[in-house]
Amino acid sequence: MSEFYSQNVSGCMAGTIGDDGLTDDALETARAAAWDVWSAMRADIAEGGFPAVSIAQQSDDLAAIRDVAARLSAHCDTVAVIGVGGSSLGAEALCALASAPPVDVRFLNNPDPETVARFIASVDLARVGLVMVSKSGGTAETLVLAMTLMPALIEARSGDAVADYAVVIAEPGDNPIRRLAEAWATPVIDHPVDIGGRYAALSAVGLLPAALAGVDIDAVRAGAVEALEANLDGETVEDVPAALGAAVSLALLQSQGARMSVMMPYADALAPFARWYRQLWAESVGKNGRGTTPIDALGSVDQHSQLQLYLDGPKDKMFTIVTQQLAGRGDRVSPDLANHAGATYLAGQTTGDLLAAEQEATIESLCAHGRPVRRIEVVRVDEAAIGALMAHFMLETVTAAFMLGCDPFDQPAVDDGKERARQRLADTAGSAGGAPT
Amino acid sequence: MSEFYSQNVSGCMAGTIGDDGLTDDALETARAAAWDVWSAMRADIAEGGFPAVSIAQQSDDLAAIRDVAARLSAHCDTVAVIGVGGSSLGAEALCALASAPPVDVRFLNNPDPETVARFIASVDLARVGLVMVSKSGGTAETLVLAMTLMPALIEARSGDAVADYAVVIAEPGDNPIRRLAEAWATPVIDHPVDIGGRYAALSAVGLLPAALAGVDIDAVRAGAVEALEANLDGETVEDVPAALGAAVSLALLQSQGARMSVMMPYADALAPFARWYRQLWAESVGKNGRGTTPIDALGSVDQHSQLQLYLDGPKDKMFTIVTQQLAGRGDRVSPDLANHAGATYLAGQTTGDLLAAEQEATIESLCAHGRPVRRIEVVRVDEAAIGALMAHFMLETVTAAFMLGCDPFDQPAVDDGKERARQRLADTAGSAGGAPT
Repeated sequence: MSEFYSQNVSGCMAGTIGDDGLTDDALETARAAAWDVWSAMRADIAEGGFPAVSIAQQSDDLAAIRDVAARLSAHCDTVAVIGVGGSSLGAEALCALASAPPVDVRFLNNPDPETVARFIASVDLARVGLVMVSKSGGTAETLVLAMTLMPALIEARSGDAVADYAVVIAEPGDNPIRRLAEAWATPVIDHPVDIGGRYAALSAVGLLPAALAGVDIDAVRAGAVEALEANLDGETVEDVPAALGAAVSLALLQSQGARMSVMMPYADALAPFARWYRQLWAESVGKNGRGTTPIDALGSVDQHSQLQLYLDGPKDKMFTIVTQQLAGRGDRVSPDLANHAGATYLAGQTTGDLLAAEQEATIESLCAHGRPVRRIEVVRVDEAAIGALMAHFMLETVTAAFMLGCDPFDQPAVDDGKERARQRLADTAGSAGGAPT
Repeated sequence: MSEFYSQNVSGCMAGTIGDDGLTDDALETARAAAWDVWSAMRADIAEGGFPAVSIAQQSDDLAAIRDVAARLSAHCDTVAVIGVGGSSLGAEALCALASAPPVDVRFLNNPDPETVARFIASVDLARVGLVMVSKSGGTAETLVLAMTLMPALIEARSGDAVADYAVVIAEPGDNPIRRLAEAWATPVIDHPVDIGGRYAALSAVGLLPAALAGVDIDAVRAGAVEALEANLDGETVEDVPAALGAAVSLALLQSQGARMSVMMPYADALAPFARWYRQLWAESVGKNGRGTTPIDALGSVDQHSQLQLYLDGPKDKMFTIVTQQLAGRGDRVSPDLANHAGATYLAGQTTGDLLAAEQEATIESLCAHGRPVRRIEVVRVDEAAIGALMAHFMLETVTAAFMLGCDPFDQPAVDDGKERARQRLADTAGSAGGAPT
């Protein structure tokens, strides 16, 4: 049992939601399959065989991350993280916890000319820093953004040492971004070779931007370690939340046709976390015609956008509602004002009371409509909680992928699109430098 | 034919993508059904029977919108729009077009205590304004945010007239937010009675925040009018893009099992537009067990997050890729730098060249994997284009809902969750004002 999060899958069961839920038999079959996968991995994971999570047990790499963060913080007002997918989403999720970031950390994850122009117009280039992240070192978007922005920075900051405002994170070896780093005299932090991009949130890829934003990166790792150990300690699938979660997801897919998995936290600060999960799950299990489609949603916002469909549309989804303890938090509505408005049910309530009531009401309402709901509860949305959630979902995703017979660590189909884009550009490279069309 | 956007559905057809595409017969059946619905509505729409879109033909309400915007702009540095769902998403989509907003327009759409605290900590309350939007006047989230923030503003701005910093948009009649507006002496703009929340983007609900952000609201409406007329002018379903789009979507659902509809623009400025579409479609067609699930994605970002699943996961989606003309736009990569990096295919390319290549490559790659793709092209992401796209998708959504036998304008299931939340709060109202738990 983790102290940072708990999971309740009773809302997925026929005993709670009727015929649309899992029978005990259906769950038992999936539980056994999950336990087979988990048992086969468990000893290996305990010995560090899943570095994406076990990296959280390290601390010898944190000093270097902190040093770079301190140096950039001392010389930059704004730091743009240039990276896409796994080089961005985990860091975005962690940075969202910062309530008053000492440095304005932005994410440039798209080579959109309008976005770049707005970014440049909104900053003082002489006080801008760049964190350029690409595991392979060859990501086209990252290279183009780096190659267009770094020259501007080098000019604007001509009196400053490059290490005061730029750093690269990439695998060791000869690759395009390392060649650029060498040409620009930019320090490089190694991207762990044995951790794939979408699993890299607990490495420097997630933690350097988080440290810049003032997030407590020790607490992130401590939360992940605690959740890892809590899962490893379980002696049955019921006591391994990651394996149980995988079992429930796949049982719902197989027996109830739940082809979509909606991740809906009741906390704005977890909205980027849901997008991190979306990549993790989609790229890990979405192959060979298998998998389910992850959807990120946000409570209570999407009650007013998606809930109609969720309650009354096709029965093809499972829901993970991430709740937090909210009662009594936030500003309180004056009873006089609420009574004057004729909204007596709001008299004396706080913003947190309302959000708390909404998260419970949504869970109840989904159950009443026969829609399977898993609840993940955190006491509070903080560093330890998000570290624990990241560890949980990395473990759950890997378990589910193996249950589906997929390799959780590859993404073979993406290369097709990359190669087509590269070919299109190569075909026009001869005319490069010509007149813009 | 609209001059602001074009639609190409050839990537949904068996002739292009093989057996996973629509046969001519399957499309023809859906086309006939769409034409029946469209023909039945067409004369009525032409006479203003679909006020959500035909409001764009008006201009007599713009002066009032502009006056309020000017007054708030003169007295506020930051304006928070308090509203949820339809009271927020259309405005967010329009405000995203502003490259240098004269007023910092923020959206408070969630009663999250942490978000509210961060908002207050990030502004000078004496220079903050509020636009409070609720069609019914009784939306709980909007009321709680208004009732907690307005008293703080009234105190912080005690020397100022309320009309300098606050406005309400709500239906006429006696409702909670109007009672508050009266108590606070806050001006009220009427929310059109005959336009539902999710269809309100072209009314003051969308246009007042847009005007505050410096968006050209005349051009938004002009784009919508042009697209409306282009659709009304069509003499066959091929010439009515909204009807053809509805036909293709439902034919793909029925004959190919495309239960999800992915909206993926290649423009950061259209990311909020995709979320606006997500509500519009979900709440309009997601009922009685019918409908498809809309998913918002973003190019090129989600090539590195979702494309693996889209290309190689289950064949249960259709894709709408919104492209723009990008070649030659943006900053150019130095050929020397690209050659030094060993990324010669990027030599002399601009950010826009890369994004242009990516949007084409994604369409090609989806087609090559037998995934149905519709392309919507705009020349440039600007006010006229987004007005046209909003008109198109409102018309398409209504057509699709009627084809499915759904009422496009209600959302009956949402009320269940609302009532449950209200009841939970009412149950605790006796203890309100007691110690926070």
